[in-house]
Amino acid sequence: MKKLINDPADVLKEALQGVAAAHADRLTVLTEPNIIIRADAPVQGKVALVSGGGAGHEPLHGGFVGMGMLDAACPGEVFTSPTPDQMLAADKAVNGGAGVLHIVKNYTGDVLNFEMAAELAGAEDIEVEAVVIDDDVAVKDSLYTAGRRGVGATVLAEKICGAAAEQGKSLAEVAELCRRVNANARSMGMALTSCTVPAAGKPTFELGAAEMEIGVGIHGEPGRERKALAPVHEVVEMLAAPIVDDLPFASGDRVLAFVNSMGGTPLIELYIVYNELNQFLSARGIEVSRNLIGPYITSLEMQGCSITLLKLDDEMTALWDAPVNTTGLRWGA
Amino acid sequence: MKKLINDPADVLKEALQGVAAAHADRLTVLTEPNIIIRADAPVQGKVALVSGGGAGHEPLHGGFVGMGMLDAACPGEVFTSPTPDQMLAADKAVNGGAGVLHIVKNYTGDVLNFEMAAELAGAEDIEVEAVVIDDDVAVKDSLYTAGRRGVGATVLAEKICGAAAEQGKSLAEVAELCRRVNANARSMGMALTSCTVPAAGKPTFELGAAEMEIGVGIHGEPGRERKALAPVHEVVEMLAAPIVDDLPFASGDRVLAFVNSMGGTPLIELYIVYNELNQFLSARGIEVSRNLIGPYITSLEMQGCSITLLKLDDEMTALWDAPVNTTGLRWGA
Repeated sequence: MKKLINDPADVLKEALQGVAAAHADRLTVLTEPNIIIRADAPVQGKVALVSGGGAGHEPLHGGFVGMGMLDAACPGEVFTSPTPDQMLAADKAVNGGAGVLHIVKNYTGDVLNFEMAAELAGAEDIEVEAVVIDDDVAVKDSLYTAGRRGVGATVLAEKICGAAAEQGKSLAEVAELCRRVNANARSMGMALTSCTVPAAGKPTFELGAAEMEIGVGIHGEPGRERKALAPVHEVVEMLAAPIVDDLPFASGDRVLAFVNSMGGTPLIELYIVYNELNQFLSARGIEVSRNLIGPYITSLEMQGCSITLLKLDDEMTALWDAPVNTTGLRWGA
Repeated sequence: MKKLINDPADVLKEALQGVAAAHADRLTVLTEPNIIIRADAPVQGKVALVSGGGAGHEPLHGGFVGMGMLDAACPGEVFTSPTPDQMLAADKAVNGGAGVLHIVKNYTGDVLNFEMAAELAGAEDIEVEAVVIDDDVAVKDSLYTAGRRGVGATVLAEKICGAAAEQGKSLAEVAELCRRVNANARSMGMALTSCTVPAAGKPTFELGAAEMEIGVGIHGEPGRERKALAPVHEVVEMLAAPIVDDLPFASGDRVLAFVNSMGGTPLIELYIVYNELNQFLSARGIEVSRNLIGPYITSLEMQGCSITLLKLDDEMTALWDAPVNTTGLRWGA
């Protein structure tokens, strides 16, 4: 196993120490339980956004804590759900009196633990709504998941709903918006190589030198099919066609196109993917009016990419463009 | 070779098409010859900054074109110097009457071609100054280079000098500042795996499953030594001790600590590296007052990292903090 780590058991702890040391001006990192919160939390009167999940997908979620996005992130061990006590601690730390939205990726452990946390928070008079993200069209009912998996749309929902919360929307409004983002977003990913979970010490799955996995999950879960390597032109077709057909996206739609690295694929390749995706969509009359290109929801050092398309309306577009100040996404007005 | 590409011969062309399609609102991508320029170039009365080098190091340099950083980037084919005609075309496109600064990484081909371009530009009455960046303490005189190689300090010089140019400094002042950044910065990198140049189709070098290369160059050039894999605590010591001893950095210094991914190493590992580096520096009384953590000067999909330290003064700190709006680095006032 080739990784820049010490003891595999200390990966999360030491990464969080690094985050704390690097970003003390803007983030507070608590331990026992582990949560990352905005340094200015709680923001009084604002709906608070809490997300979380297993580590190994950085910058998701800790890198999206800050003005205009999340108020807190709950990191579990690598590819392991955080616990209800983390989520409850996060809710209590960031609730500014306007309630808390849980943004939950659809994995069985995450969903159950966030449900329990919501009950516990309710018992302490914190109003909680939860939205489960399930945008991955690759498979239904896979390892770790009943129904579709939650992947790239999570990043977009956190940005768009974070902006809405910042503008003073109510908990019901922000939750409704989050459901709308999820309903209008579809994703699919692929892997050229497996990742290696530090505690396991060996690749999660085996892929031959001339093989790729189409529809892979962000923990290396099996996808739709194992295929021979193909030019990226064909790979993009394999990912984008099922996405576009599923919603469906139609001619005249404006979309946000998100091309994501699984962690080990560099930017130069992502731009080639984007070029193919843009041509694919243009040919179908779909206009890319916003884009996001980079490693935002990763699977450790896995090589590969995912594509997420979100059908935009004017409100979502304006919220996407609104200022954000996190370590992972940052722009001004 | 596992990459998201079509024909290896088309990698640069298609990546530039992707950049053009994604960022038409802020960048203009020209072909024949290939240059990436600010959409608002030339900025009248402002010193223009031009850099460039082989592709494969993204976001360097094209991702650093924009307000507060570069005016133009000249991308060569992967790991291949751009040509003087590209640089001349860039100089002519972005010169706003206040002259042009060439920021050149110290590789023989880049240096020669930028020198020739400066002569050609001079013949067209464009005032050009050039600063060669040579911050890599790993080796002297290596493959492709006489003297030390130019690596991570390039990113910092482009940011800091870009801010100075934006504030109206003269060409002589911006060039002097660039030399000062270079003189106060030191770097060293390491590789866990090799990269594969698309046109070559096989890894640039061979590393055993239990080996790493300390002092590697950003094109996979040999480093100081091949060593057995070690915990990141020891790896950081191997990189940081030669850096700190070289300038030297001393107790009481304030530094910008830049932890860079070689392309295939994910963010979670970079934060563990940063944690170790911060502790190493604290133990020597060196204060990290600014940091940059992520993939900013990469070597295709190589796994590994580099560390750059820049001794800061008040002017450099203020210029680092100044607004920047590029696709690779972006923040407000």
